[in-house]
Amino acid sequence: MQPVSFRSIALKYKAIFFDAYGVLKNSRGLVPGITETFDFLQTHQIEHYILTNDASRSPEELAEQYVRRGLYAITPDRIISSGMLALDFLHAKVDGGTVAYLGTDASAHYVETQGVHTISIRDLDLDHVEDINAFVLLDDEGFDWTQDLNKAVNLLRKQNMPVIVANTDLTYPVSETELAIAVGGLANMLEGIAQKTFIRFGKPDTQIFQFAFEHIQMHGPIEKRDILMVGDTLQTDILGGNKFGIDTCLVLTGNTQPSRYLSRIDSSGISPDMVCESIGC
Amino acid sequence: MQPVSFRSIALKYKAIFFDAYGVLKNSRGLVPGITETFDFLQTHQIEHYILTNDASRSPEELAEQYVRRGLYAITPDRIISSGMLALDFLHAKVDGGTVAYLGTDASAHYVETQGVHTISIRDLDLDHVEDINAFVLLDDEGFDWTQDLNKAVNLLRKQNMPVIVANTDLTYPVSETELAIAVGGLANMLEGIAQKTFIRFGKPDTQIFQFAFEHIQMHGPIEKRDILMVGDTLQTDILGGNKFGIDTCLVLTGNTQPSRYLSRIDSSGISPDMVCESIGC
Amino acid sequence: MQPVSFRSIALKYKAIFFDAYGVLKNSRGLVPGITETFDFLQTHQIEHYILTNDASRSPEELAEQYVRRGLYAITPDRIISSGMLALDFLHAKVDGGTVAYLGTDASAHYVETQGVHTISIRDLDLDHVEDINAFVLLDDEGFDWTQDLNKAVNLLRKQNMPVIVANTDLTYPVSETELAIAVGGLANMLEGIAQKTFIRFGKPDTQIFQFAFEHIQMHGPIEKRDILMVGDTLQTDILGGNKFGIDTCLVLTGNTQPSRYLSRIDSSGISPDMVCESIGC
Amino acid sequence: MQPVSFRSIALKYKAIFFDAYGVLKNSRGLVPGITETFDFLQTHQIEHYILTNDASRSPEELAEQYVRRGLYAITPDRIISSGMLALDFLHAKVDGGTVAYLGTDASAHYVETQGVHTISIRDLDLDHVEDINAFVLLDDEGFDWTQDLNKAVNLLRKQNMPVIVANTDLTYPVSETELAIAVGGLANMLEGIAQKTFIRFGKPDTQIFQFAFEHIQMHGPIEKRDILMVGDTLQTDILGGNKFGIDTCLVLTGNTQPSRYLSRIDSSGISPDMVCESIGC
Repeated sequence: MQPVSFRSIALKYKAIFFDAYGVLKNSRGLVPGITETFDFLQTHQIEHYILTNDASRSPEELAEQYVRRGLYAITPDRIISSGMLALDFLHAKVDGGTVAYLGTDASAHYVETQGVHTISIRDLDLDHVEDINAFVLLDDEGFDWTQDLNKAVNLLRKQNMPVIVANTDLTYPVSETELAIAVGGLANMLEGIAQKTFIRFGKPDTQIFQFAFEHIQMHGPIEKRDILMVGDTLQTDILGGNKFGIDTCLVLTGNTQPSRYLSRIDSSGISPDMVCESIGC
Repeated sequence: MQPVSFRSIALKYKAIFFDAYGVLKNSRGLVPGITETFDFLQTHQIEHYILTNDASRSPEELAEQYVRRGLYAITPDRIISSGMLALDFLHAKVDGGTVAYLGTDASAHYVETQGVHTISIRDLDLDHVEDINAFVLLDDEGFDWTQDLNKAVNLLRKQNMPVIVANTDLTYPVSETELAIAVGGLANMLEGIAQKTFIRFGKPDTQIFQFAFEHIQMHGPIEKRDILMVGDTLQTDILGGNKFGIDTCLVLTGNTQPSRYLSRIDSSGISPDMVCESIGC
Repeated sequence: MQPVSFRSIALKYKAIFFDAYGVLKNSRGLVPGITETFDFLQTHQIEHYILTNDASRSPEELAEQYVRRGLYAITPDRIISSGMLALDFLHAKVDGGTVAYLGTDASAHYVETQGVHTISIRDLDLDHVEDINAFVLLDDEGFDWTQDLNKAVNLLRKQNMPVIVANTDLTYPVSETELAIAVGGLANMLEGIAQKTFIRFGKPDTQIFQFAFEHIQMHGPIEKRDILMVGDTLQTDILGGNKFGIDTCLVLTGNTQPSRYLSRIDSSGISPDMVCESIGC
Repeated sequence: MQPVSFRSIALKYKAIFFDAYGVLKNSRGLVPGITETFDFLQTHQIEHYILTNDASRSPEELAEQYVRRGLYAITPDRIISSGMLALDFLHAKVDGGTVAYLGTDASAHYVETQGVHTISIRDLDLDHVEDINAFVLLDDEGFDWTQDLNKAVNLLRKQNMPVIVANTDLTYPVSETELAIAVGGLANMLEGIAQKTFIRFGKPDTQIFQFAFEHIQMHGPIEKRDILMVGDTLQTDILGGNKFGIDTCLVLTGNTQPSRYLSRIDSSGISPDMVCESIGC
């Protein structure tokens, strides 16, 4: 499976779903040529959506990061985050009471704007948890891991409640050579200790693809065969896109390196339909 | 959480999704009172769908089992099976070539009617697997486990291909006291040995709920808050319904026994919104 | 399986292995009657050893905790900890260089006294890890979880080295109602993220039983059938003792509560040979 | 880590533990030069033991396979199998009653000679299981997988009993290009379905190393630093030897191929102390 030019294959689709980190930008900044690619998509009337495992910010704040770097095509209405799905769940299934969370004040603020009352695990009194109706993991920042992960374990022992993991990623890159543990990694530890079944939102689960699929119908009817998913990670972007039944394209600007992509495809059993060096050319 | 009368809560919804085994019927036959319940639903214009982890038969054959027992409300167009989702995947993502399968001839026949060319693992020559483009696990019957599970392991070593698990259940009941291993149980063993990522269809994954949700719109627009999922299994029916964002009701005529449902809810962390003894009253 | 008197069954053995927490002491202090029990054992010339999943302190420091509470039978030479096994491994398999660790200074001090050069992950410079030859998880305290667990993930990405988990427990009790995450819980998270195989020491692995078995031969030859393992946890004490081939006795003063022990045995499939309320009578 | 000559490194040890398949023989027969290597070991008075994950035959029958091919150094008293450990467990912990088994008559015959009463799952009447005290998985042959794996699931539902897995391997080679599922692979499926904790014997668990270590003392006192473990599989031979605290040597005549061993070491985190192309030179 040899890499092909992204723009040439893009022409075959009416809409393209992009992963964010590793596809649009990486530790060196925006992927070179990306502005021209989004101009190209606009010229050819190809719609785009960003599907991202992120619950740390609102779509507005996520979009702002691109605008600051000079990429204006990524508007808030084009961003679908795993956090939005978690929020939908809280709306549908948690009625009244308070939702405890792990994450920053900013991540909780986004939840609060939708009418859900929240409390940080940090501020929780373990002797008074009667009105806690759910526990949601939003971000790996904004709390003290030692103290608050231990509080989380005890909260789940004291009361039975749905636990929502709003980002399934285990890690995320913080520089060209280093990673940080993401909230999905912390979630796996807590689930193993609590021995309860957590509810996860984010790729490779198809729910986020379905959410984007419904949104895109607003720009006119579109079928699955007219959509391409572009991502840098086999286990999330490509597996999820394949399962949802749309074409998939692996790019080599992030998690999956040019020298290793063939062996990674072979050892995982997860095959994209195409491979591109980058979306910038 | 005390059991309530099913018919009284049913009135609050415009549509109800039912699991099949353990809800409509069990080892003793049809659940008593079920005909009256479906008459009641029809009288009150409450739509119904059956969501079942089953890829062994076509919807027509699945429906026939109920008709034969005198229940006429379960028509083929009301049945959504995990096998239908697997078939959708094969259509969307596998182009030409042949699909190898584990299952009965009947299960493959259903796949063949949709234009996919299949070959039983039983009949596969391991020295000529070049045109095998996918491997699908349909049913635990129709093949020799010793010979054909070993052939499956070697097929996956010889060629990289998507593997589709069309029923995620680990077991199914064959009498009041005994279980049989379902194809989902065999799939877990093969996945552990092959070290590849398989693609699974069926509850608790929300894709089958979405599929039913789209179908039901044909009877007029309906929202998630107007739908109830009824099932006998916390880990599939209730977890999936919760994650999809609809109300859930646990019945005690199948997997989850009246004497144990409270401790099961507590130890799993999976809570239904309601509990009913049976859908028959 | 009805509880029996501990002292009456003790008479059938020449040596008894005890777990520490939940058996000798719990959140309310020393188990009532324990001094009399150890006097009884001494009178009847029944040897004893303490087998504990603990790498946070030296045997001397562990023994001191009992002396301070008035129990003088628990001397350092009677304590076998998982930390001692981890130290043995470092001696046998790590030659020169430096061992990075997660834990308190006290836990590392014990390692240092045995001639191994250590550095806390806290003090590690990720740009200079060439001389790090192994990584050992000793204790959940003594470091900043947020900063240092992230450093641990990056250390394992930069260099291939054996990772030793010196305590496999997921949690430990800190009060009558609350738990804390133990270093074994943190280890599981790091292993899942690093995708490397860690080396674990501690019950239920039989190596710690073998270690005690060899030690006890110094008091005269003894056979496995003359030894009893007493513990409060099915998954560690009882499973390990069973696998090692010695008799096992579950006590109900710790992890496994009197009201639940029968259902726990049934659901886990791990059966002790006997059950006692407490070792104090 | 470059391959070195096996005979040159062998001189540094007083005893060597060998894995069997992939080290002494492979799909092409005995490894070339092996007779000369065992002559060399004898000349230099280096003891040897074979440590094998196998419960399908007695040591006598295992040894016979080598004699038939002209290798006389592998005598029954030099073979330590995981089956011997399982048998030890049955002696120590199962008192009276009958042990149900999955395996050939030959595998059960070896168990029977040690005084344990056995019944094949094949011949078991599920309505009369009261006197079944344990269930042991010996071999992947000798029974009908479809019928008897289902019977095993139901046996474990009807009665709580220890389940012993006498060979932890997932697969074994049957030709140069094909594998078969081993009883350890079947065990994982049954354990996942039964949700009980099985007791496993075999590498990488250190119990088999300890067993060999005790045996070898009969030839004169020997210390761990004087023993080398030689194997073709990182996850069993090398991990187990490392954990037991002896030197380890990876050979490239079996599971781990010459072109891939460096990447396998790197991705697993399991490092042998040395690598040799083969023990034959």
